[in-house]
Amino acid sequence: MNFIEIIKKKRDGKIFGPDEISFLINQFTKGNIPDYQFSALLMAILLKGMNDSETAALTKSMLKSGKVINLFSLKGKKVDKHSTGGVGDKTSLIIAPIVASAGIYVPMISGRGLGHTGGTLDKLESIPGFRTDLSLSESIKVLKKCGAVLIGQTKEIAPADKMIYALRDVTATIESIPLITASIMSKKLAEGIDGLVLDIKTGNGAFMKSHRDSIRLANSLIQTARSFNKNVIAFITDMNQPLGNYIGNWLEVYESIQVLNGKVKNDLYNLSIKLAGAMIFLGKKAKSLQAGEQIAKDKIENGEAFKKFLEIVELQAGDVNYINNPKRYPKSKYSKKICSDKSGFIKEMNTYQIGMASLELGAGRRKKNDVIDHKAGIVLNKKVRDYLGKNDIICELYSDSRSEIKLAEQMIVGSIKISKTKPLIPKLIKKVIL
Amino acid sequence: MNFIEIIKKKRDGKIFGPDEISFLINQFTKGNIPDYQFSALLMAILLKGMNDSETAALTKSMLKSGKVINLFSLKGKKVDKHSTGGVGDKTSLIIAPIVASAGIYVPMISGRGLGHTGGTLDKLESIPGFRTDLSLSESIKVLKKCGAVLIGQTKEIAPADKMIYALRDVTATIESIPLITASIMSKKLAEGIDGLVLDIKTGNGAFMKSHRDSIRLANSLIQTARSFNKNVIAFITDMNQPLGNYIGNWLEVYESIQVLNGKVKNDLYNLSIKLAGAMIFLGKKAKSLQAGEQIAKDKIENGEAFKKFLEIVELQAGDVNYINNPKRYPKSKYSKKICSDKSGFIKEMNTYQIGMASLELGAGRRKKNDVIDHKAGIVLNKKVRDYLGKNDIICELYSDSRSEIKLAEQMIVGSIKISKTKPLIPKLIKKVIL
Repeated sequence: MNFIEIIKKKRDGKIFGPDEISFLINQFTKGNIPDYQFSALLMAILLKGMNDSETAALTKSMLKSGKVINLFSLKGKKVDKHSTGGVGDKTSLIIAPIVASAGIYVPMISGRGLGHTGGTLDKLESIPGFRTDLSLSESIKVLKKCGAVLIGQTKEIAPADKMIYALRDVTATIESIPLITASIMSKKLAEGIDGLVLDIKTGNGAFMKSHRDSIRLANSLIQTARSFNKNVIAFITDMNQPLGNYIGNWLEVYESIQVLNGKVKNDLYNLSIKLAGAMIFLGKKAKSLQAGEQIAKDKIENGEAFKKFLEIVELQAGDVNYINNPKRYPKSKYSKKICSDKSGFIKEMNTYQIGMASLELGAGRRKKNDVIDHKAGIVLNKKVRDYLGKNDIICELYSDSRSEIKLAEQMIVGSIKISKTKPLIPKLIKKVIL
Repeated sequence: MNFIEIIKKKRDGKIFGPDEISFLINQFTKGNIPDYQFSALLMAILLKGMNDSETAALTKSMLKSGKVINLFSLKGKKVDKHSTGGVGDKTSLIIAPIVASAGIYVPMISGRGLGHTGGTLDKLESIPGFRTDLSLSESIKVLKKCGAVLIGQTKEIAPADKMIYALRDVTATIESIPLITASIMSKKLAEGIDGLVLDIKTGNGAFMKSHRDSIRLANSLIQTARSFNKNVIAFITDMNQPLGNYIGNWLEVYESIQVLNGKVKNDLYNLSIKLAGAMIFLGKKAKSLQAGEQIAKDKIENGEAFKKFLEIVELQAGDVNYINNPKRYPKSKYSKKICSDKSGFIKEMNTYQIGMASLELGAGRRKKNDVIDHKAGIVLNKKVRDYLGKNDIICELYSDSRSEIKLAEQMIVGSIKISKTKPLIPKLIKKVIL
């Protein structure tokens, strides 16, 4: 096959056959197609699209570029969750122990934060000692012992995805629904799972800003998962404000501990129960979503979820003392309470801006190799629809740099809109696609 | 400026400002933008387009990446012609001496053949000794002495175009009207010309297969030329059959000599007169196109054009003995007359296929570094609308390889369609845009 002719085909809006897609991915992974040709193809795919069969074939080829974790020795269902990412989205840390304590295996491969969003791996690594770089055989051992493991993408998992993602990142070809789908699904399918719950974020802090695009991505992911005979449930959820009240790596672990302990019942708790309930349903431990949710609630109330979290942390070499006594965690050098200079109801939060403020404080990365300050971040006192009196505290900022606090303060003040009338509560779960 | 943001802008269909375009071309030419990013941008440009201002700015930046030939010392108008290329298109060899003999300077920078089309440089180099690689100062000397010079793109001329073209060639991004326009015009404007005649080929042997695309390209070239205050006339001309009867490098020089000598008055002669006439008009040596054409005809009849051709060949170190006695040129080892196995009128010729057959015989290149056999090619005995009796000779093939003759024969026989009724004559000049 002639690679230039293949680029032309997509450029001219034609449809690839499975053989062509498999040729492309094999040859690119082997280094036989130069980056400059592949990036032109990626742009053509972004602009001309791919249909469901092409997306499924792409996912398959990317999956086959690496290993599928062999979990046949584990009796019982394996179910995972994937979120498209947002600000303060820490549900993985809460869901994995809930679902594992319900008797379902959760082999979770997660990512790092980039841009305004945080990443599960960075959050977990804020726990001193916690290892996210377990080998596949170490991971399977942990999974066997406690029912859940939370690791990063290993070399063996979908290496084609890693290569393609690196090129997309620098060629403005991230925002393509078929490419996003294949990237997500090739990794998730490599986990050897039976079922998958999808949390597609929509709103001003999500990668998919519009409801329409979120639905398109959800449908693409669902179609692809089903073509591999996986059970899947998708939730379209709100990202027009941060999820929960804590943003920043350790701060998010802290809030997760509060939720797992049953001390906090906020939007983060509600969404975690919904997603965990769906996973329990897909894992055949409940006859309905509602029944699954009830089990999830029970696992928090009876302390099993928190106990499971301690077990996971311990098996992945994390120091459980900080989980049991989170107040002992080191503090940022500086902190500042941001107060309101007017009164009224919070009508809007620019969630992207708040995520970027958290990055400025040290919680995120500007470039891939930047080092994260795990202590840094933001604790929100108020969220959308809350009333702010003059001089009320909006949030508190934490950083080791005084100048970054100043910058973040400006960003946060500019990101919040106040109104005199009480706005509607933004709906947390916008749609469930079964 | 952030290069990824610039790619995004075009990807999302937005319009570049002149500063952005100048930044792109400067940075790419300096090697500061990697090929894989630039090729993604090229694909976005191909699929999302560029408006006239963007195309003009792109042309300007590419032009400014190199030198503009300084022809101020030459008193008199400088006019050139550009053809988008086809099969048997050798008008440059005929036009340059006609127009120079009419007292207009013709500083002509030409290209090489690639794919099914021939290139002026390759044709000229079939004349033993002929140098197309003159330096800029040598070229100006030749131009001063005889009024015309025919050279290749030097290092100093639009180096950005050379780099971008090489990348377009391997990333399926050739067929973009703004990119084609900027590539052509940046080189032509570097010639220091006052006026330009465009010959936009349309039909099954042209790069622009549809009449609509040819008009679009013509308009884009005209707009761009005018934004640089250049006088321009565009001809949309037929490429649904080869131009003239000879295809192959020396064979085309041979046919050009016949036309310059006034011995042949075929379609090649007619088009050459039209184009030369327009150049003479743009060079202010005639008050109308018709008057220009009359001068062109006169220059052939009175022998001045042929004399000028000898002068050019001699000044560019070519051996004029072969021009004066073309029959002495070396012959191909093998030749074969292809006869018709049925009778009727020639209704259609697949010109692309005929060009590819000529390439197979040795007259063209499959890859950039292939060596051309200057003797090889095709002489057509019949063209569209001619009657073919059974066993009449359609054409004669020349090659040093017997197996290639066999292959070319099959290609040519398959490329010709016969009909019982006499078809219409294909119109040679389809449109003139003043």
